[in-house]
Amino acid sequence: MKQDKQKKELEIMRHSCEHVLHQAMGELYPGLMRAMGPATEEGFYHDFDYPGKINESDFPKIEKRMKEIIESDLPIIGREISLAEAKEIFKDNPYKIDWLKQIEERGEKITVYWTGEPGKTGSDVDLCRGPHLESTGKIGPFKLLSLAGAYWHGDEKNKMLTRIYGTCFPTQKELDNYLWQIEEAKKRDHRKIGSELDLFSIDDYVGPGLVLWHPKLSVVREEIELYWRKQHRQRGYQYVYTPHVGQDNLWKTSGHLVCFKDGMYPPMAMESKNKDEKTSYYVKPMNCPFHVRIYKSRTRSYKELPIRWCELGSVYRYEESGVLHGMLRVRGFTQDDAHIICREDQFVGEVNEILDFALSLNKDFGFDKLNVYLSTRDPQNKEKYVGEDRIWDLAEKTLKEILDKRKISYQIDAGGAKFYGPAIDLKAVDALSREWQGTTIQLDMNLPSRFGMSYIGEDGKEHLPVMLHRTLLGSMERFVGTLIEHYAGAFPVWLAPIQAIIIPISDKVGQYASSIAEKLKEAEIRVELDSRDERMQAKIRDAETQKIPYMIIVGPKEETENLVNVRIRGEKVLGLLTLEEFIKTIKEDIAKKRQI
Amino acid sequence: MKQDKQKKELEIMRHSCEHVLHQAMGELYPGLMRAMGPATEEGFYHDFDYPGKINESDFPKIEKRMKEIIESDLPIIGREISLAEAKEIFKDNPYKIDWLKQIEERGEKITVYWTGEPGKTGSDVDLCRGPHLESTGKIGPFKLLSLAGAYWHGDEKNKMLTRIYGTCFPTQKELDNYLWQIEEAKKRDHRKIGSELDLFSIDDYVGPGLVLWHPKLSVVREEIELYWRKQHRQRGYQYVYTPHVGQDNLWKTSGHLVCFKDGMYPPMAMESKNKDEKTSYYVKPMNCPFHVRIYKSRTRSYKELPIRWCELGSVYRYEESGVLHGMLRVRGFTQDDAHIICREDQFVGEVNEILDFALSLNKDFGFDKLNVYLSTRDPQNKEKYVGEDRIWDLAEKTLKEILDKRKISYQIDAGGAKFYGPAIDLKAVDALSREWQGTTIQLDMNLPSRFGMSYIGEDGKEHLPVMLHRTLLGSMERFVGTLIEHYAGAFPVWLAPIQAIIIPISDKVGQYASSIAEKLKEAEIRVELDSRDERMQAKIRDAETQKIPYMIIVGPKEETENLVNVRIRGEKVLGLLTLEEFIKTIKEDIAKKRQI
Repeated sequence: MKQDKQKKELEIMRHSCEHVLHQAMGELYPGLMRAMGPATEEGFYHDFDYPGKINESDFPKIEKRMKEIIESDLPIIGREISLAEAKEIFKDNPYKIDWLKQIEERGEKITVYWTGEPGKTGSDVDLCRGPHLESTGKIGPFKLLSLAGAYWHGDEKNKMLTRIYGTCFPTQKELDNYLWQIEEAKKRDHRKIGSELDLFSIDDYVGPGLVLWHPKLSVVREEIELYWRKQHRQRGYQYVYTPHVGQDNLWKTSGHLVCFKDGMYPPMAMESKNKDEKTSYYVKPMNCPFHVRIYKSRTRSYKELPIRWCELGSVYRYEESGVLHGMLRVRGFTQDDAHIICREDQFVGEVNEILDFALSLNKDFGFDKLNVYLSTRDPQNKEKYVGEDRIWDLAEKTLKEILDKRKISYQIDAGGAKFYGPAIDLKAVDALSREWQGTTIQLDMNLPSRFGMSYIGEDGKEHLPVMLHRTLLGSMERFVGTLIEHYAGAFPVWLAPIQAIIIPISDKVGQYASSIAEKLKEAEIRVELDSRDERMQAKIRDAETQKIPYMIIVGPKEETENLVNVRIRGEKVLGLLTLEEFIKTIKEDIAKKRQI
Repeated sequence: MKQDKQKKELEIMRHSCEHVLHQAMGELYPGLMRAMGPATEEGFYHDFDYPGKINESDFPKIEKRMKEIIESDLPIIGREISLAEAKEIFKDNPYKIDWLKQIEERGEKITVYWTGEPGKTGSDVDLCRGPHLESTGKIGPFKLLSLAGAYWHGDEKNKMLTRIYGTCFPTQKELDNYLWQIEEAKKRDHRKIGSELDLFSIDDYVGPGLVLWHPKLSVVREEIELYWRKQHRQRGYQYVYTPHVGQDNLWKTSGHLVCFKDGMYPPMAMESKNKDEKTSYYVKPMNCPFHVRIYKSRTRSYKELPIRWCELGSVYRYEESGVLHGMLRVRGFTQDDAHIICREDQFVGEVNEILDFALSLNKDFGFDKLNVYLSTRDPQNKEKYVGEDRIWDLAEKTLKEILDKRKISYQIDAGGAKFYGPAIDLKAVDALSREWQGTTIQLDMNLPSRFGMSYIGEDGKEHLPVMLHRTLLGSMERFVGTLIEHYAGAFPVWLAPIQAIIIPISDKVGQYASSIAEKLKEAEIRVELDSRDERMQAKIRDAETQKIPYMIIVGPKEETENLVNVRIRGEKVLGLLTLEEFIKTIKEDIAKKRQI
């Protein structure tokens, strides 16, 4: 595919750029020992060992030399050489000798890449498998980004090296855009904004990856939940509530204890409480087995299907603490889950309805662009999945047909399936063009038979239903974390924790300000009154910092004329309005989910 | 107190009545071996060993003989006797000989109670500590209730005996009322109704005491939660969300691992996942430590207090499986929790506000009558509590003063306090005069210091806040279980899972029926259309069984006149209305939380 080819080309260019960095470092810092460096998803890095000190303030000097090497358009030439030759070339560099030892142990061929004419002055050489660009002149605009420490071979028992990160792109425009995105992403980091706006905390005392939602962010979540529930009712879903723990039998039957155990919190052994209870409980990593047990609480008829059960179900999954990241990668999260249990003749229609639902819901949250993935089984690791090949092939084929028929373009994510079935995944693209996992629609033809689910068909006989697992937002934690970054903390009015703040310009209008606050509360606007003894400008500045959508300034003039003077965050002025006009305006923002 | 005295007198009468049963059984069934029998909270029972068969159909015969003994007004006479005398009297009864052996081992005195003149014909004797009424004639109206099996000394290694349950009361009216209550309670049993109306299930596969809320009961819960959240917002509470698991450190600091460990699920040892994580997690038995951690996420000022944080927090507590009872006694439940963190000069006002809130909320759910308890520390078991005597005395005194000042009459529940502080408990009295634990307001002067909570006072110094823990409904599970029994499954309209059902009397009016359904849905009424091919009477009967508040019958006449014919559950007829009139009626029921 075209995309894959472009990606490969970019990787090669970045790898060549890393060689240029390798050469520059060697030339600029005598005594510096160059260790290794690859291309990455975002650029490249280079690790080295240097007794002196190198800072980010040295980057211009290094970049200057790199630029010269690139402008010289040196050829980049690969050569296969003997071990003896290699040992001779790299004899002064213990890191390369270490690499060579490993290559030797694996019995692999040894290749080096020369920048410039091999062996000539001004050339450089590195152990490398390639491939590379033909010459340095073909490298696009580049930039060194940051410095960090890194252990040799990533092992903390080894020496700590210094790592320089950099990136390069085919065009200056792409590079500039990338650099802007990095800067903007730093500013929008939900952890930074979360702390500034008192939105949430993650507390090592409670446990890594477990989010405490503070009151203001809880308002955002409550609004989302209310809206979500209403939408689900309108679309024929029913809500259920299920426990957060379940006995081991449940997880054995479901297959979790075989295929998902690594992702589960450790068991709670009940024998420690009562010797007769020879069972263990697990906090749930998924809600599905509970919904299945409700289904099985009585006989079901074909007339009842499709059943659409939804739940805001909090689940807990074990992740290494090193990969956790704010609200975006956590151990405890609330899925906006649903399970559709239906007949075989119904599930294609159901998948299509969920797709419609997902598109509409994402749009309401400001995500108009979605990237689509078909997540399939990893054919190399079949032991990670339950069920027969035939069923998997059928399920994957069906999802593919649904996407094809809707003319939705998508990528294949091989190995992205859950252990019970393939999925259609929609990733929301945010204001910085970043992708966020949200909607997943999983087609499960395995758990129904594992759990012995059935319904009585029109023929009076027992039949096996099909099950769809789906989330639309994904998890409340990740979705709200994404929203914080997408909106840089400036939530649209309907979600804003405080929708309007009243700023009296002096004590004299305190009563008028209070009466305005009361009227807005009656109109169910989330309003606060800033009655602090501060100057108006300071109060406006604080409201801007707090990203409050509307500031209502009232002074003696406003009181006399019975008006309010309205400002909009982002230093915009709406001007003098009657309170009724303002309420009409803000109510419309809320109803239309406007981002002002 | 008067109540205690009455209770004691009733217990004595019931004990004497059990002796009458003892005598009757001895006389009526030669070869029957009488084991033992006490008075209980609800009446009395008597255990015996009989090779023949005795059924509940034998009760009239036994009751007849008991009545004769009572009418004979035999004296009941206590005597202290020697072991030798006792062994002679009971030589043919191995159960009494077993008792005697135990009394001997404990070195206690031996007393027997004679009914009738000791040793004379027509008299009876039993090993017994008493006390008893003077004579059988003083025993009030009685009734035998049921038969069951019971192991000797309650030990399943011993022989299974037969147990007869009975009760007696001072007056016939009280007995009749009690018998009516038993019958009515059986009919209203939330487990029976829960199954009939498909409301919930508890599934041994998931685990005992863990409730699966089915769609219909989830509607009831959603409505309660919506109402609860709105009420809390209006009263100045803020919502928070917290995880369901937390690290052991948290529970050490809180004191749970010292004072509440028996009530907690077993630990999850993280070392099994990663050798570097030397910690255990516990599913939370309470929400308080999480709210405390949010409080401590930044410095707090006196100006912010009182903080009122509420959460519908699901907690898990270990209970022996034998004591579990439907939704009323469970292992997993969602508390309608809140914590008020305030200054010392604020907490009396806060307790009063919570009391007002609790009274108003209970009333809205149809509980006008509440019994009030002051739950204090058990002075005999001080090791079950954290904190100093001085603080406990102050806290208990303060709550007492609040109740006294409001002239609320209450009982003391010694030992009813949580480990961190005393409480005011309000128990709702239901339609059968039964008490249900609901609101609890706990005054906690201990956890704030354990957790190192503080706020900066007006003086610029650090101060210790006071914390109130409170639930108003108690838990969603118990409260909704109580509601099912209180309303016998016939929820008021605002809570009813299905508020109206449309019953077309023939296919011909199918379209009209559908249009009515659509209009009701638009008006946000939870409506269903019964389009089954059944007779109208059968559909009405089914709707009555399902306890649906409104049945809307439509036939050709209604269609022509553009009207609806409305019935109310309980076989009441509202008659012909326009749809608008009906919508107005039902909307008013909902708004006013009417029980129709």
